[in-house]
Amino acid sequence: MADQRVDVVVVGAGFAGLTAARELTGAGRSVVVLEARDRVGGRTCTEEHLGTWIDLGGQWIGPGQDRIVALVDQLGLRTYPQTEAGDDVILDGDGARRVANVAFGFDDDELTSYLELVGALEAIAEQVPLEAPWSAPRAQEWDAMSLAEWVRTRGVVERVAGLFEVGVQAVFAASSAQLSLLHAAHYLHSAGGWSKLTDSEGGAQQDRVEGGMQPVAEQLASRLPEGTMRLFHAVTSIAQHDDGVRIGVSAPAGPTELDADRVVVAVPPTLAGRIAYDPPLGAQRDQLVQHMPQGSVVKFHVLYEEPWWRDEGLSGMVLAPGEPIGVTFDCTPPAGRPGLISGFFEGPAAVAAGEQTMEERRDVVVDVLARAMGERARDVAGYVDRDWSAEPFTRGCYGAHLPPGAWTVYGPALRRPIGRIHWAGTETAEHWTGYIDGAIDSGQRVAAEVLAALGG
Amino acid sequence: MADQRVDVVVVGAGFAGLTAARELTGAGRSVVVLEARDRVGGRTCTEEHLGTWIDLGGQWIGPGQDRIVALVDQLGLRTYPQTEAGDDVILDGDGARRVANVAFGFDDDELTSYLELVGALEAIAEQVPLEAPWSAPRAQEWDAMSLAEWVRTRGVVERVAGLFEVGVQAVFAASSAQLSLLHAAHYLHSAGGWSKLTDSEGGAQQDRVEGGMQPVAEQLASRLPEGTMRLFHAVTSIAQHDDGVRIGVSAPAGPTELDADRVVVAVPPTLAGRIAYDPPLGAQRDQLVQHMPQGSVVKFHVLYEEPWWRDEGLSGMVLAPGEPIGVTFDCTPPAGRPGLISGFFEGPAAVAAGEQTMEERRDVVVDVLARAMGERARDVAGYVDRDWSAEPFTRGCYGAHLPPGAWTVYGPALRRPIGRIHWAGTETAEHWTGYIDGAIDSGQRVAAEVLAALGG
Repeated sequence: MADQRVDVVVVGAGFAGLTAARELTGAGRSVVVLEARDRVGGRTCTEEHLGTWIDLGGQWIGPGQDRIVALVDQLGLRTYPQTEAGDDVILDGDGARRVANVAFGFDDDELTSYLELVGALEAIAEQVPLEAPWSAPRAQEWDAMSLAEWVRTRGVVERVAGLFEVGVQAVFAASSAQLSLLHAAHYLHSAGGWSKLTDSEGGAQQDRVEGGMQPVAEQLASRLPEGTMRLFHAVTSIAQHDDGVRIGVSAPAGPTELDADRVVVAVPPTLAGRIAYDPPLGAQRDQLVQHMPQGSVVKFHVLYEEPWWRDEGLSGMVLAPGEPIGVTFDCTPPAGRPGLISGFFEGPAAVAAGEQTMEERRDVVVDVLARAMGERARDVAGYVDRDWSAEPFTRGCYGAHLPPGAWTVYGPALRRPIGRIHWAGTETAEHWTGYIDGAIDSGQRVAAEVLAALGG
Repeated sequence: MADQRVDVVVVGAGFAGLTAARELTGAGRSVVVLEARDRVGGRTCTEEHLGTWIDLGGQWIGPGQDRIVALVDQLGLRTYPQTEAGDDVILDGDGARRVANVAFGFDDDELTSYLELVGALEAIAEQVPLEAPWSAPRAQEWDAMSLAEWVRTRGVVERVAGLFEVGVQAVFAASSAQLSLLHAAHYLHSAGGWSKLTDSEGGAQQDRVEGGMQPVAEQLASRLPEGTMRLFHAVTSIAQHDDGVRIGVSAPAGPTELDADRVVVAVPPTLAGRIAYDPPLGAQRDQLVQHMPQGSVVKFHVLYEEPWWRDEGLSGMVLAPGEPIGVTFDCTPPAGRPGLISGFFEGPAAVAAGEQTMEERRDVVVDVLARAMGERARDVAGYVDRDWSAEPFTRGCYGAHLPPGAWTVYGPALRRPIGRIHWAGTETAEHWTGYIDGAIDSGQRVAAEVLAALGG
């Protein structure tokens, strides 16, 4: 006899799980959301440091992300644009140089080559069905090569390939060597193209939410019926039987169980794979999640008394091919103080950074900033970062990716329910997969799926 | 207070764990081996079907596999050679044809091309350090491409590429698209070359153990001190503290705990990643196992009243590029009856086969055999198979592989102990990684490591 019986248990209180819970409770169903952490929000996390709020996780929204834009609007929250004013800095083998826009760091030939490369990838992307990438016309061929290999066969010059790689790692938190070309193409299609993924104005990095992104999730959670949310509840097992599903939970007061008609698993695929299922999941589903590693990223924030770079006509954006940190942004809060430069160790560099102390990482970051923007970058007021791969209830950001040879073989198991188990999470989304918007998309889709299964 | 305290807990009673336990108890240490299943042997499993023993898992040993050869000898077990007498059959787009040896199915140009392809791969392999593949001279380049992509850039003709792919899938239980070139090269080097992996006489498929392979593991287990082995004990958590390590176990009588000075984790990497560690493992180690999916294989056995194909001068070996089953072998027991053809659905074909019923798989297999060897193949006395990816305490065979971009980034975490936790299993071996011999190698290595840590 379990401790409680509800219509639906939702595993994970990120945007996917909270959206599913919102839709299901809105339809009159009884729901419990089980969250292993001490907080909701999943891969978003907003904390106070040195008198300002800082987004340690997901922070941006942009045009075309209709679901998160609508949600922020419904909740009455305000957004403000990611600042882009001033010159960007490219730091590479030739040293640091200011450019009006990163693309203009190229000469004409390089720019043409870059645009052709992106165009060729987008031409592939448009042929990849969002709901079934494995059914693309040349799926086998595109899935048999890494994105790195595809770039190499196109023979672009080093500077172009280098900046493209910075973009890839900024988008995927993985190197192009780790990504199936088919996966990269599907991801592009899901967002609407390369520039949607990489741009600030007009793209996925256009706007911020005042007060940070995690409070959006908190507001979602606070509107759920009382008793729906359970923090510190880590799901360890899911057992299906004729009448329902029994969820095993590790909780502060000891192990506990809940019964439900249906369960929605809304955690990253690799964590879904660590739950003990009874009966065991089939081979294709289990091996799918074996082939969906999370990206590797350490997000950092350097605080200054004020955004001094603005006085010097700099945007705070640094692109640094060949350095451990790929890209930085001016994330100074709307109030204008303190000055805040945020950025990322991504992919292989994040793994190396994860072996260092936070102090060592700070020194690396500040040194890059000083070489790119000048010595004033050394006058730091504070530093904080988060290695998302080290978080036991995330194990990597921004999302999962598929290496070569996985989508075409294991992909059909991604969203297919198994008995009373339904799968959500941004990795299951058709639109903006890997993003907050994709998480909401998946939550809405899975809620509809569960309501249909429950008989409306 | 845990239920028992020992020097070392070993997780998993495959050949790696049993070897570690043998070495550690031999050195006077107290050991408990925890095994989730109802049997020892891991990825070996010998069962009686229709009056004969059948190896549902690993079954062969060969020259150069010094550790398993020595073990079989020490235990006084007898071996017999894999039969190769008779013509092989190649079944492809041109239909079925008999050949004296599969390589002789090629014309001269094709044979030259095939040997050049294999030679080029072996030339890379020899440059990959066994203990640290990420330090190979061109590791970044070799890790950025899939084996499939490397083959494609060499421009070999379809027939050669097709037969090479059959070999790759027979060795790795994954398609060449799924494998980092660096991984494939390391694997070859670890075994001593391509022909060591693919050959019967002189290679890894040379000999069988009379009575089957799992009894070797059973004999190892039976020689451990009384009370060492615990079946039905699934490890769920490993917590490290100042004085030792506490192992949480799911057992038939309910949850239990053991304390130890050290723990050896000797299960496939993806399963090691499903244990709850406290403190959580670091990012590099956790993400390593996210990048080590198990291969996909369904091993099947078709029984006949007698080995009728021998009368017709056939070896029982069928190579079938383009068919769901890649390769078959005559596995008739030494007694000469019943006749037994064993073979494999491998890689993508195994995943598709896993979605079918055993009856459907039998029909597929028998149809291929009939088209290759003649209609007598349809007169079946029995059929049995095992989908190793569906086994919750294996989740795929023969072993794990690394996709592009993983060895160079996560590889250094493979064998590095984390506090009191030591890692074993054939995937951690320098010699014959992926094989039973590699499992024994890893058990010996980890035992030495633990004894040194315990102070001799």
